[in-house]
Amino acid sequence: MMSARFITFEGGEGSGKSTQIRRLAARLQERGRDVLITREPGGTPEAEAIRGLLVSGDVARWTARSEALLNYAAREQHLEQVIRPALVSGRTVLCDRFMDSTRAYQGYAGGCEPGFIDALERAVVGPTRPDLTLVFDLDPAIGLARAKSRGDHQAEDRYERKGLAFHGKLREGFLDILRKDPKRCRLVDASQDIDAVAEDVWSIVEAAG
Amino acid sequence: MMSARFITFEGGEGSGKSTQIRRLAARLQERGRDVLITREPGGTPEAEAIRGLLVSGDVARWTARSEALLNYAAREQHLEQVIRPALVSGRTVLCDRFMDSTRAYQGYAGGCEPGFIDALERAVVGPTRPDLTLVFDLDPAIGLARAKSRGDHQAEDRYERKGLAFHGKLREGFLDILRKDPKRCRLVDASQDIDAVAEDVWSIVEAAG
Repeated sequence: MMSARFITFEGGEGSGKSTQIRRLAARLQERGRDVLITREPGGTPEAEAIRGLLVSGDVARWTARSEALLNYAAREQHLEQVIRPALVSGRTVLCDRFMDSTRAYQGYAGGCEPGFIDALERAVVGPTRPDLTLVFDLDPAIGLARAKSRGDHQAEDRYERKGLAFHGKLREGFLDILRKDPKRCRLVDASQDIDAVAEDVWSIVEAAG
Repeated sequence: MMSARFITFEGGEGSGKSTQIRRLAARLQERGRDVLITREPGGTPEAEAIRGLLVSGDVARWTARSEALLNYAAREQHLEQVIRPALVSGRTVLCDRFMDSTRAYQGYAGGCEPGFIDALERAVVGPTRPDLTLVFDLDPAIGLARAKSRGDHQAEDRYERKGLAFHGKLREGFLDILRKDPKRCRLVDASQDIDAVAEDVWSIVEAAG
């Protein structure tokens, strides 16, 4: 019934993606689906090493273009070694962040030209585009407060430290991506409580079948 | 008289580029030139962190495309923060490896499609192409033996460990780059002794004026 097998979760900091990925995975597994949970940047030991360069250290350490290239270096490894093999063997892949995060963080919020990101997306992602993308939308002031109080990724706070103006542009970026690709992308109101978000996610995934 | 201000040194392992860069820099400084010596991958603290991911560890740790993307992430930082500012302020830049190394190592020897590298080169290097590129040519068996006996970069031997077949393709790649861009690239016979190579380098740099 449900044919969406490559599902990505996108959105700003503190929007609850990781919790909802686990909830959705459990529900899909109950239905007999073989589910792989993974994340970006990362998902392989080498891509996680690149993640380390991106998520820690000085806020201004990279140009937006370098960040986009680093994300795509990690994504290339992740696609080749994890995502494509999993899809080929019939697994369902739930990925915490993917190509839309590069477009939102380095493009809309970071100022990297869209054409530069388009070229990387075409060359590296190619035909392996997500079947379905859930865009978790939340007031960035609330998301950043949540991420801070969570405190479980204290060494990974480089993007959180980029400030509210950056995160405002990020939110607008994700909403624009959603408007431009309504067939693939669906809005999730991440301001609701966890159970309500989980129900919305489930309805969207079921309907995408 | 001499107008070449962005000069790159290319070639396989153990071809003597670093020694010759120092010799050329000294000679240019005697003539009153303000010279910057730099290298790739690297040349900024952040780009050196990327270098660390490339030059150490398992031979097969990266796909050729990921390597190309990592090199270009480092190159973007290096161009923006070091090379372009130096050229703008009138300095002469001598760079140990640049864009042709990506084309030779990840393209010709690594198997990454030329079009992928073309796109990165256009987007990141843009108009900041070298005025002059010296291609140090040497039998890879001799170069690898030299690099090994040198022993000063033991932690940076990932490419040396790629084996003779890889380094044979690398040499052919550099020679093909030279054939395709004879206006910018000049061959240096790196099998000669150090003083003879230094004289050849000086003649080429003088003639490029």
